[in-house]
Amino acid sequence: MDIGKYTFEEFRHMAAKFHGYPAPGLLLGGYMVEMAKRAMPEVRFFEVVVETGKCLPDAVQLLTLCSAGNNRMKVVDLGKYALNMFDKFTGEGVRVFVDPQKLKAWPEYYGWFMKEKTKERQDQARLLRELEEAGDTVLAMRPIRIAPAYLGHVHQGPVALCPECGEAYPTAGGPRCRSCAGEAPYSVISP
Amino acid sequence: MDIGKYTFEEFRHMAAKFHGYPAPGLLLGGYMVEMAKRAMPEVRFFEVVVETGKCLPDAVQLLTLCSAGNNRMKVVDLGKYALNMFDKFTGEGVRVFVDPQKLKAWPEYYGWFMKEKTKERQDQARLLRELEEAGDTVLAMRPIRIAPAYLGHVHQGPVALCPECGEAYPTAGGPRCRSCAGEAPYSVISP
Repeated sequence: MDIGKYTFEEFRHMAAKFHGYPAPGLLLGGYMVEMAKRAMPEVRFFEVVVETGKCLPDAVQLLTLCSAGNNRMKVVDLGKYALNMFDKFTGEGVRVFVDPQKLKAWPEYYGWFMKEKTKERQDQARLLRELEEAGDTVLAMRPIRIAPAYLGHVHQGPVALCPECGEAYPTAGGPRCRSCAGEAPYSVISP
Repeated sequence: MDIGKYTFEEFRHMAAKFHGYPAPGLLLGGYMVEMAKRAMPEVRFFEVVVETGKCLPDAVQLLTLCSAGNNRMKVVDLGKYALNMFDKFTGEGVRVFVDPQKLKAWPEYYGWFMKEKTKERQDQARLLRELEEAGDTVLAMRPIRIAPAYLGHVHQGPVALCPECGEAYPTAGGPRCRSCAGEAPYSVISP
């Protein structure tokens, strides 16, 4: 089954180029994103909340204008293979998720999804064949309203130079930047 | 100045296609990512920790194989326009950031970066001209070691069907999925 305007092979190629390899989860994600888009053709400004940090965020970024860097895509990592696509003004939209009961019709695909086998013991060719043949028939969709916390964008406010490191930072965080206040994710080493 | 193997115009086009519009922060981010890559040509498996959620994550995703969905890019939103690129095995690498003192040579660019004017009062054509001419001369770089928390990947562990919603979830979180435990980012509505 095609993934939106792309053939399965075309999308596999796009996935590999962006993600490093054509992960099955990213291909499954392609069907999920396209099902959600088809359900709300009239909504021009939609956003997405993804419920897993694994692969699915990249399907969203490849097939919509929602991205990690424009904040139209947010990841709430609940470990669930599901996405919420909604009107950014009203918060109404759809949730698309994998239905394990439907997936049972495809043994290799179900086994992969439920992590029944190690990667080495998976039959990759069969998995991809089942994934493409199943298309969006393994999915389910419900109308939803996104939680208020995910509606609208937080504006950062004024910026100033941190008196300790000299870099620009949002002053809302206090008199010095959060890195100088102890939250730096790195330590400087000698060259 | 070119952005890696792309001309400024080519990268502007890529930025618009992925991000929705060619945001100045994404173009600046392009120079930052390319400076980091040039500093560690021998490192094949690198990852990135970005210190802002605004625009810069998309420059990383467009110019490397590190993405939100493959977890080779992580965002720690400290509100600072900086990125850390490091060897995924040793944690050593570089931090690239904007040096406000160097940026002062470019008045429109500095004013935009420090949020001195509203968007309506910015001279967009001049901003882009200064941004392209300045290239990576407004950046600084330091050797760093990433904090241990950002090294390695967390494996999710076994998956089972949630007894309440019937969807697959990582059992490490407890006897039911986190959504059914009250963390769902959505509410189901009647169609």
